Amino acid sequence: MTDVVQISPDVTRLLEDKNLAFVATLMKDGSPQITPTWIDLVDEMIIVNTAEGRTKQKNVSRDPRVGISIVDRNNPYNMVTIHGKVIEQTTVGADKHADKMAKKYLEVDKYPFAAPGEKRILLKIIPQKIFHMPPRL
Amino acid sequence: MTDVVQISPDVTRLLEDKNLAFVATLMKDGSPQITPTWIDLVDEMIIVNTAEGRTKQKNVSRDPRVGISIVDRNNPYNMVTIHGKVIEQTTVGADKHADKMAKKYLEVDKYPFAAPGEKRILLKIIPQKIFHMPPRL
Repeated sequence: MTDVVQISPDVTRLLEDKNLAFVATLMKDGSPQITPTWIDLVDEMIIVNTAEGRTKQKNVSRDPRVGISIVDRNNPYNMVTIHGKVIEQTTVGADKHADKMAKKYLEVDKYPFAAPGEKRILLKIIPQKIFHMPPRL
Repeated sequence: MTDVVQISPDVTRLLEDKNLAFVATLMKDGSPQITPTWIDLVDEMIIVNTAEGRTKQKNVSRDPRVGISIVDRNNPYNMVTIHGKVIEQTTVGADKHADKMAKKYLEVDKYPFAAPGEKRILLKIIPQKIFHMPPRL
């Protein structure tokens, strides 16, 4: 089992508030790729809701290492960088979770962007290193 | 010479407006690391102003491949993802450029965060792939 680090209250707030997260994964050639995404924290695990076949889903299936950066939407100088690893991918509960994220970020009850035939997948990420930079402004 | 791609007017606007950019680099073990950063566009090259010895500067010295993600601060669903490569690092003009970035992002004339002995460095990045996702909301 890989080392997991504790998530502090300040970092929990960054994850629970409706900040966009930027998630970096590795392309087949090892180069880094970033996408902005909604994010959730459940039972000390960071959750990203994506769909089967998306670049980041394919990338983490090949190499589970991810980098995450979150900036406080109310203060761009309050930020956290996380190194982590996807330890599980599951479709179970993923549609319902997309609705939860739509509620969090858009204040609507139903995820509005579902494409026909799209299969939602939850990426469950454990944090292995966390650097929180408290505001300097 | 690696292929360079053209930067469209919409992407130029994302780079020129005062949006934070998220830059992913590769750690020594190949894992991805992200940091939020100020960003500039000069002569079709993307410029990141950093300091010697910072994680991202050390990372791109080892492997020049970077991922960049920028989200429109006025519309989080207008975003661009860029794959690029650092083709040059220089200290020439870097202090003055830090002041230019402070003007752009903080509306002050002088970069206020200079640490004693810090040596500023410009990372010059050529874009190799650009994915612009126009707003869906």
